[in-house]
Amino acid sequence: MNVNIERLYNRLTELGRIGQVSDTGVNRFAFTKEDKEAQKLVTKWMEEAGMQVKHDNFGNLIGRKEGNRPELPVVMMGSHIDTVPNGGRFDGTLGVIGAIEVVQVLMENNLQHDHPIEIVAFSDEEGTRFSDGLFGSRGMVGLVRENDLRLKDSDGITRYDAIKSFGFNINPEQYKASVRKRGEIKLYFEMHIEQGPYLQAQNKSVGIVKGIAGPVWLNIRITGEAGHAGATPMHLRKDPMNGAAEIIAEIERVCHNDSASTLVGTVGRINAFPGGRNVIPDSVEFTVDIRDIDEQKRTQAIELIDDKLKKICRERALDGEIEVLQEIEPVMCSQEIIESLEQESHRLNLDAPVMMSGAGHDAMFLEQITDIGMIFVRCKDGISHSPKEWVSKEDILDGTLLLLNTIQRYI
Amino acid sequence: MNVNIERLYNRLTELGRIGQVSDTGVNRFAFTKEDKEAQKLVTKWMEEAGMQVKHDNFGNLIGRKEGNRPELPVVMMGSHIDTVPNGGRFDGTLGVIGAIEVVQVLMENNLQHDHPIEIVAFSDEEGTRFSDGLFGSRGMVGLVRENDLRLKDSDGITRYDAIKSFGFNINPEQYKASVRKRGEIKLYFEMHIEQGPYLQAQNKSVGIVKGIAGPVWLNIRITGEAGHAGATPMHLRKDPMNGAAEIIAEIERVCHNDSASTLVGTVGRINAFPGGRNVIPDSVEFTVDIRDIDEQKRTQAIELIDDKLKKICRERALDGEIEVLQEIEPVMCSQEIIESLEQESHRLNLDAPVMMSGAGHDAMFLEQITDIGMIFVRCKDGISHSPKEWVSKEDILDGTLLLLNTIQRYI
Repeated sequence: MNVNIERLYNRLTELGRIGQVSDTGVNRFAFTKEDKEAQKLVTKWMEEAGMQVKHDNFGNLIGRKEGNRPELPVVMMGSHIDTVPNGGRFDGTLGVIGAIEVVQVLMENNLQHDHPIEIVAFSDEEGTRFSDGLFGSRGMVGLVRENDLRLKDSDGITRYDAIKSFGFNINPEQYKASVRKRGEIKLYFEMHIEQGPYLQAQNKSVGIVKGIAGPVWLNIRITGEAGHAGATPMHLRKDPMNGAAEIIAEIERVCHNDSASTLVGTVGRINAFPGGRNVIPDSVEFTVDIRDIDEQKRTQAIELIDDKLKKICRERALDGEIEVLQEIEPVMCSQEIIESLEQESHRLNLDAPVMMSGAGHDAMFLEQITDIGMIFVRCKDGISHSPKEWVSKEDILDGTLLLLNTIQRYI
Repeated sequence: MNVNIERLYNRLTELGRIGQVSDTGVNRFAFTKEDKEAQKLVTKWMEEAGMQVKHDNFGNLIGRKEGNRPELPVVMMGSHIDTVPNGGRFDGTLGVIGAIEVVQVLMENNLQHDHPIEIVAFSDEEGTRFSDGLFGSRGMVGLVRENDLRLKDSDGITRYDAIKSFGFNINPEQYKASVRKRGEIKLYFEMHIEQGPYLQAQNKSVGIVKGIAGPVWLNIRITGEAGHAGATPMHLRKDPMNGAAEIIAEIERVCHNDSASTLVGTVGRINAFPGGRNVIPDSVEFTVDIRDIDEQKRTQAIELIDDKLKKICRERALDGEIEVLQEIEPVMCSQEIIESLEQESHRLNLDAPVMMSGAGHDAMFLEQITDIGMIFVRCKDGISHSPKEWVSKEDILDGTLLLLNTIQRYI
């Protein structure tokens, strides 16, 4: 069986025109008219692949191809088709359009299967509009609450009203009826662009995801003593900026000391208060994002950072505080699916490395009720969430072939 | 001759009530009704000290006590009475009220002198209202231009209009007539709170200023490569935040390597872009304020910082840029006046240390046309520009006695 890469790539290109900004940027936010237009187009393609299409009450777009034994649990594939502001053409869409291609090939080859197959374009994955992402996948596994529907966008429109006026006869008030239970889904496959530079550096077109690293989000606040930048001799200062510089260097060291490790640490935001160029700050605050698929190593890293912070603050007569904002557990892909992907990758001569996903995906929540597997496709320079996001036709073909070959083991 | 410290202290307290916020904070911005009320009160005290009072066309409030030889150059003392937002009660006011006390004591003791004495409350020193300070002293030495009068406050009122409607018959359009020439002023004395913790650490009530360190203001921008905080392995990052942490630590090291040195370096403001907690920044910008009274050492320090930045950026594949925003030359106090102050300090058993001023003062500009001398008075914990600013009565007495005794050598 062969993937029709031209059809697949043309669909990605066509979808990228809905909400297009500049040459290659896309604005396609959840439950907007662009989203609606995109869902109609994807519906058409699902139907061309022989699927019956409906929405659930979270606004998830679901195509279903019945198997010979409709009572069996569903083999599910999917991802999302919404974007971040000025996002790219491949993030999410690749997983949906690639899965449609897989099903269409199965249909064209009249391949018989027992399990029903479903493809889901999960709603509001990026969280752009209501500052709250992964809505559709959280909903499907039973983690959406009333409050999630009351969130408002910047125009004051609630998510509930946005879904209600989205059309397609979606009934958000009956969202609980759309929750799936353990046992209903046999497994969930997601193909996604890597969003990192690892595969490019390894010179591989595709990767097999071992697990999704859960982020721990910390705020670190260091407090010292404000003073005049000219009038305070160096040895009389309690300068929290210098303490911050020292601990940021330590965070890098802690995460970097083993190049084989999957531990990563990032300081993405920093502010000094009061922030005058001629004032020694009285405090400096910065964020830390620490991730690993190995929860124990992640915990050790945070403990080490905490120790270093205490030591630095003691030596500098500063106060240091760490606030833990969020601590998401790493999620592991099914070992059995990883092995299947490895075998198929070997047969296809792809030699796909097993790697960590540092970013979150819909699969992360699906794991709560079923086994998950993920395929990563190389993206240029690791760039995503940007008009520069780019994936080659050849790599998309490799990823889709791997999905096509592996899925046949399960349907 | 003895200083009436109660009178002096009561005047400071009374002046602190004009524009008072909270218990001890003061909002008294240039050319406002609070400033006017304060100038009227200071006028009254100048008159009580036997002075004739007028305004020049920069809005400087000038009291003059004629000498026996009115044709001789003026012996000038002064400072300012405007404040920063939520400022303190001593910054600036001490130099004006202290000088009035000195003149009042001379008058009460009927001390004869040849030189005319002038006390100036320089207008708009803090620059709060028009974001542009040291206006009155810059004006007096001929450095104010038309543009300085066109600056607007946050309500869109120009400085010209603010001065015009301030009253006192000030004619800002004829500002050039108020410029003083070299030779007209014999010397300028300014007593000021230290605004730093040096005297407190030295356990001294007063200090003798050797020079005013000129600040160099730098913006440093480090550019790397944005990336997903989870999806980018540490060894594939070009993270400008880690480069920034390293160079900030180097700046501290460069300035701190010699505890006898007067070199100081401060990073007061820092920002990462785009600033998401889960995004490796593509760039980090921060400010650096470097000061020394030794211009050569200051230049060497900046060259060293530049070298370190280049090295760090090379090693980390980052781009580093230094932009020099402002480079103010250090200003030295008159060596002869410093020696006079030292001798009088010795006679008064004050043992005042000779020290650097890290902050700028009106004296800085007066130096362009005359010899300057400055006395620093210890302030609690080095705090200024804050309601917590505090100076003891005893220390004010010491500073004022030193001024009184020294000035007699020159009048």
